Amino acid sequence: MMQGKRVLSFGAGPGLWPDEVLARASELILPGPGTGLSPLEMSHRSPDYGEFHARALASLRRLLGAGQEHEVLLLPGGATMQFAMAPANLIPVDGVADYLVTGRWARLALSNARKWAQARVVASSEGEAFAEIPARETWDLDERAAYLHLTSNNTVVGTQLPLLPKGLDCPMVIDASSDVLTRELPLDGVGMLYAGAQKNLGPAGLGLVLIRRELLEIMPRSLPAMLSYREHAARGSLLNTPPTLLIVLLSLMLDWIEGEGGVPEMCRRADERAEIVYSALSSHPGVYSLPARAPWRSRTNVVFRLVDSARDGDFLAQATGRDLVGLEGHRSVGGLRASLYAPMPVDGARRLASLLDDFAAALGREGA
Amino acid sequence: MMQGKRVLSFGAGPGLWPDEVLARASELILPGPGTGLSPLEMSHRSPDYGEFHARALASLRRLLGAGQEHEVLLLPGGATMQFAMAPANLIPVDGVADYLVTGRWARLALSNARKWAQARVVASSEGEAFAEIPARETWDLDERAAYLHLTSNNTVVGTQLPLLPKGLDCPMVIDASSDVLTRELPLDGVGMLYAGAQKNLGPAGLGLVLIRRELLEIMPRSLPAMLSYREHAARGSLLNTPPTLLIVLLSLMLDWIEGEGGVPEMCRRADERAEIVYSALSSHPGVYSLPARAPWRSRTNVVFRLVDSARDGDFLAQATGRDLVGLEGHRSVGGLRASLYAPMPVDGARRLASLLDDFAAALGREGA
Repeated sequence: MMQGKRVLSFGAGPGLWPDEVLARASELILPGPGTGLSPLEMSHRSPDYGEFHARALASLRRLLGAGQEHEVLLLPGGATMQFAMAPANLIPVDGVADYLVTGRWARLALSNARKWAQARVVASSEGEAFAEIPARETWDLDERAAYLHLTSNNTVVGTQLPLLPKGLDCPMVIDASSDVLTRELPLDGVGMLYAGAQKNLGPAGLGLVLIRRELLEIMPRSLPAMLSYREHAARGSLLNTPPTLLIVLLSLMLDWIEGEGGVPEMCRRADERAEIVYSALSSHPGVYSLPARAPWRSRTNVVFRLVDSARDGDFLAQATGRDLVGLEGHRSVGGLRASLYAPMPVDGARRLASLLDDFAAALGREGA
Repeated sequence: MMQGKRVLSFGAGPGLWPDEVLARASELILPGPGTGLSPLEMSHRSPDYGEFHARALASLRRLLGAGQEHEVLLLPGGATMQFAMAPANLIPVDGVADYLVTGRWARLALSNARKWAQARVVASSEGEAFAEIPARETWDLDERAAYLHLTSNNTVVGTQLPLLPKGLDCPMVIDASSDVLTRELPLDGVGMLYAGAQKNLGPAGLGLVLIRRELLEIMPRSLPAMLSYREHAARGSLLNTPPTLLIVLLSLMLDWIEGEGGVPEMCRRADERAEIVYSALSSHPGVYSLPARAPWRSRTNVVFRLVDSARDGDFLAQATGRDLVGLEGHRSVGGLRASLYAPMPVDGARRLASLLDDFAAALGREGA
């Protein structure tokens, strides 16, 4: 099925797909031998589509460890839509929510919340160019807060919250777009967890929301149905015609993740990949630097710089020569970045490490 | 590529796809010989994806006849999201909008508008079970209205607005989900036109919005970026990671529509299909009845009933036996419905007409 060259993407999103899942998707998009219909043509209320829908939701529930107390929803619009919906659904009209500002996306989540209600900054590392995550002791929490919003992994500078805080007075709302399923995220204390699907879970254009059922009772303001978690939950994420094909493709990717060993295996691979890439970078301190400080370095977005940034173009060209792409840093900070999402093979990290070593060695020879 | 049986769907949405477009989609989802990437893996900011994005928007502009004064946007969430966004973006905080209530979806658009602002019913045919569209002379228009909302085609009872009204004091906002590109819709007087893509344009989970640029200046309330037409327009429908694969597939479907002859040819086929199916129904008045009254009958959703509704199951079973599916009526009204969207071949209408004739003939023999 696959022909010609195959390129490995380290882009920050959309992420890469395993060849076998793409092959299955390619086959599945054609009219099926049983139904005679493409999934693109199936009614979202038909049993044939319903099987994919239920399968994707059940996989997600298992992978996230969701219990009876949790709803799991699939919504359009990715994480950015949740920046808008979470505060609208969860902050009382005269209430307040707390936000920990650890990166560009956390800041955007905050500014979205402020369109609806009061939202406070409990701490921010913006003054340190987001190179670290503010220590818990420095957080100025508000006891009235409806929730504390956290970004579990920050893609732009490449930091990650190593552990979720415990013993808070309010539920946490967590944007886990860039590390969901690549780490164990215990759900106690979590009121809501959300993620755009396009990094670790597959198709761009879907948002995953896990929410405690009791939070669905709040509904502090009158909202159109499409913006209401309660309405989506009551209709099993079939409030309107959902992005059916994307949910079918999500179910294929989740099947693959479960088949490979689920979250424990995805965590193990994430650790191994990160270790391989960070080791290579650290072996050449004269060539590469890391803006994120050590205890907070991300396992899914390795952000690095060439000490001689004039060579960025050379590095990228050599990467492309080896069929490794998407290594440019975020446009707001420049530099380089390797995103290592759930479907990234460990061998991909090894190929990147070889490039890092060879590039450094060549620079050394030039300098000699 | 296609194997086994091929079934023709008359479902109200998602609609059917031409075999050749599905074959192209199946091929395209695999890593391309040039890029080595699947479109699922392409950055939404990459030139490779950008080509599809620009191509889809340019096709839409041509097909809709959009001019310099119009923005065309591709948004997540389908038409239901526009039920929420249109009033939020277009009705001043203390203002009002007018709604013509011609069906279930028009009523839902109205109730969504009322979440944000005042929305009036200018006329409703709900008392007539939506069997007709209220005559223009009966519309109680408000001169303060920010817009008049119209549903150009009503899928549940199968009525259609034959012509858009002229000489209004306010712009029209038109939900054209179920007849866009199957009729000529002159844009003078149209402030905004929107459609879920899954009926006439392909993939479920995308909304198309055409809006006059001057309306983007209004922005009566502070909205999160994802809910703001102005923000989406300023970012070329790339505000966040869009449903990239759906936009790629949309571009394939639009290529097909343009290749077949564009809107004039889609209109001609719509007329021919509707004529074939309505003629067959009308030939057997003792067997079939039509709830929609004659001047308002829809060319894309032919809603009909068996005079002996106890035979609905028989009819559907015979249809399935001929590989014709999706003929159930909307769950709120029962009966039968044939949706004839842009990609429906004229031959599909002929196959349905044969079934209608044969079913009626068999009933006649039973009765004889």
